[in-house]
Amino acid sequence: MAKTAITPTREQDFSAWYQNVISAADLAENSPVRGCMTIKPYGYAIWELIQKQFDAIIKSMGVQNCYFPTMIPLSFFQKEAEHVEGFAKESAVITHYRLKAVDGKITVDETAELTEPYVLRPTSETLFGEAMSRWVNSYRDLPMLLNQWANIFRWEMRPRIFLRTAEFLWQEGHCAFATKEECLKHALKMLSTYENFAKDTLALFSYTGEKTPEERFAGADNTYTFETMSQDGKSSQSGTSHNLGQHFAKSFNIKYQSEEGKEEFAWTNSWGVSSRLIGAMIVAHSDDDGLILPPAIAPYECVIIPFIKSDMDTKALTAYCEKVKESLLNAGIRVLFDNSDMRSSDKVWKWIKKGAPIRIEIGANELSQDSVTITRRDLGKASQKQINLKSISEIRDVLNTMQKDIYEKHKSLTLDSTKTVKTIEEAKELLAKDFKGFIKLPYKETLSEKYDELKETYKITRRCLPLEDKETVIIAKSF
Amino acid sequence: MAKTAITPTREQDFSAWYQNVISAADLAENSPVRGCMTIKPYGYAIWELIQKQFDAIIKSMGVQNCYFPTMIPLSFFQKEAEHVEGFAKESAVITHYRLKAVDGKITVDETAELTEPYVLRPTSETLFGEAMSRWVNSYRDLPMLLNQWANIFRWEMRPRIFLRTAEFLWQEGHCAFATKEECLKHALKMLSTYENFAKDTLALFSYTGEKTPEERFAGADNTYTFETMSQDGKSSQSGTSHNLGQHFAKSFNIKYQSEEGKEEFAWTNSWGVSSRLIGAMIVAHSDDDGLILPPAIAPYECVIIPFIKSDMDTKALTAYCEKVKESLLNAGIRVLFDNSDMRSSDKVWKWIKKGAPIRIEIGANELSQDSVTITRRDLGKASQKQINLKSISEIRDVLNTMQKDIYEKHKSLTLDSTKTVKTIEEAKELLAKDFKGFIKLPYKETLSEKYDELKETYKITRRCLPLEDKETVIIAKSF
Repeated sequence: MAKTAITPTREQDFSAWYQNVISAADLAENSPVRGCMTIKPYGYAIWELIQKQFDAIIKSMGVQNCYFPTMIPLSFFQKEAEHVEGFAKESAVITHYRLKAVDGKITVDETAELTEPYVLRPTSETLFGEAMSRWVNSYRDLPMLLNQWANIFRWEMRPRIFLRTAEFLWQEGHCAFATKEECLKHALKMLSTYENFAKDTLALFSYTGEKTPEERFAGADNTYTFETMSQDGKSSQSGTSHNLGQHFAKSFNIKYQSEEGKEEFAWTNSWGVSSRLIGAMIVAHSDDDGLILPPAIAPYECVIIPFIKSDMDTKALTAYCEKVKESLLNAGIRVLFDNSDMRSSDKVWKWIKKGAPIRIEIGANELSQDSVTITRRDLGKASQKQINLKSISEIRDVLNTMQKDIYEKHKSLTLDSTKTVKTIEEAKELLAKDFKGFIKLPYKETLSEKYDELKETYKITRRCLPLEDKETVIIAKSF
Repeated sequence: MAKTAITPTREQDFSAWYQNVISAADLAENSPVRGCMTIKPYGYAIWELIQKQFDAIIKSMGVQNCYFPTMIPLSFFQKEAEHVEGFAKESAVITHYRLKAVDGKITVDETAELTEPYVLRPTSETLFGEAMSRWVNSYRDLPMLLNQWANIFRWEMRPRIFLRTAEFLWQEGHCAFATKEECLKHALKMLSTYENFAKDTLALFSYTGEKTPEERFAGADNTYTFETMSQDGKSSQSGTSHNLGQHFAKSFNIKYQSEEGKEEFAWTNSWGVSSRLIGAMIVAHSDDDGLILPPAIAPYECVIIPFIKSDMDTKALTAYCEKVKESLLNAGIRVLFDNSDMRSSDKVWKWIKKGAPIRIEIGANELSQDSVTITRRDLGKASQKQINLKSISEIRDVLNTMQKDIYEKHKSLTLDSTKTVKTIEEAKELLAKDFKGFIKLPYKETLSEKYDELKETYKITRRCLPLEDKETVIIAKSF
């Protein structure tokens, strides 16, 4: 068996492999702050690309960014009863506003206790709701389409980098509408916007659907989700869009005067994707040599690696590499010339593990032939080919093809690992044989004690009712 | 006296005027969360322009972005003694991680108390320090240039929007170096980077200098600052750069192996600017009609306002406005066509109060002459002129001139309102006559009881020792 850069392999221990891919690519690490992660520069650069691209999309849809406080007074949080119940058990609570020194040791100043404790936002429907009750007055103010990019806090008992941490980064859209229909339509539009974004940027195929009542967001009429599959057949809830109906409008008194002069409650929705997308992407695409990044989300789409031999004119090689870099920059390609003090073969492995989409190797041959040798990260040696410097912009086509190929591969994986059955007994048979994937079955089959048993034994959950067939439910393990 | 859009005027009550400019421009509001602000879309768009432009600058200087947790364990915070002392009195403290319902009322779950309380970051030297102690190993890892864009928490007893709030937005750079000289040089380089950024983007003239020992950052060897003047002669500390020496390297054990194989402590610095910049800009430039935005920081550099008369072909006018808008977009100018359902004269006042740099008015005359009428916000009617559609790209020159003019005006204000005196008695005389501005005097003059009296009576503080003359100190009131 060939040696792999990441051990254990996916086959041997998928969870350990996931952690090791992240650390070998230097994306992030567990923080000494319990349950939190530190996102390192290479990982943060991926998040910046997600932000930049998604931000442009929502702005083109008329959404405006703003920023609300992180601390939410308990009394606000409490106004929507289901909402507070859903988040109470994972809330970080601020109770004091000052420290004091006692014998050189710093401690909480008990005399500085807040009269009302604050919760660190686990989501911000409450503060947006309160503001909208003042900002929305007339039908002319609607729709009001707001968003914020923020850090979010949910106390996680079993933290896992990018997927579940006590603090994470996200965007949260909060919108108000005049009618029920508009509000629902927009919630669904955001779901399809997420689906397309996941495809075009992260090369993720996803199932879109509605959460069953048991899995709904605390305080929503409908929760829509897009679920993506890991290579071990588990599901990641990669983003959600909630139709909140009039729950928050009534709790926070968001009213508007209609064209006919009548006072009406507004309808609201909210929608979010988070740094979890990075985790979902890793478990979908990466291999036993480490990270595989779709070009659209890669901090460097190409990395140039010079191969220096002892008898070579190093200056000429470096100058040639710089020239190649310039051509690629001019073609609008994100490129790094890795001119660091490291052996070329080590550089190759470094950038394999970091998932750079295309490696560009340049040595004596390439220099003499005015060419470069390119290798696709996802296909490896088999994809190696020489390209003349004159045709260097062809690399854009290779990147585009690669983006599509990674998506198609993930789509095939997902479809091939989705089995449709008719009864809960059939589902049980599959799971007993250690089936790795999603199981589709009639929703009503899961409204039974047999399902509860299955859920308990195999740790599966209902993921969603696919939009095109709401009689059916997808069940799977959660990554 | 001419009617002004903002009352009271600057002359009548500068503080009230400041609040009213912010609310008339719809930039931000006081949040119901104590001491916090909500940044509304128009204000947040200004922050996004600051972020985008400053982020590009630091990236070009080799700085990499990353993201650290918001919650800092007390034990970390405590490692640098001066540091914790400096921030202890304004720390928000997290003590619990769960809520519970008692008789339908939500309350803190006392059984879920943290064994070690967390502080919401008032700054992140401690977490960066801990990470650098692991990330820095060899001289090859240095310099390590990191930055994060984040929310920051400092419990403020006298909050004021943008200038002092319990939560605000900022960037914090944290860098480690091999030598003392490099570290100091870089801290100073960041100071001049800030000075230039403030000039080019916010059109702010600033005094750059070193804070006196009394005003230094908690745990720094040197704190450098750039101070900008408000129109009522007060000073805003608009950003700081700290040379931390080896304080944090020693507290957190940031060591590296030198080229000679010796183990050495690193040297660190940190530097930050925040959403306070928006406040500093407002008090520097705006007038009694509201906000004045330098073009470089304006969400819309131009706003097109159609003037419709009852007998007009509305469609033709709208089409013409769209055409003008397209031309400006093609010239790379941020433009809004205000086609809302509002009277033209109301739109004019709206965009005066919102500080749009150039108003473009289009009515029957302009339509028939293939022209537009432009007005600069800072100069008003006197600057009105007609421009032919063919020469529309000239607007870029007008914007550039305007950016320079606003800066020069602020520079003149600052220089004209700076008085140099030789003794503390002379300073007292000025202050007794209600002098509004900065006073320069020999630093040693302020090392006396007389200075302490002055400080108490007139609420002045030492702002900085100008870099070019460290024997001198600038004293002023703080905005």
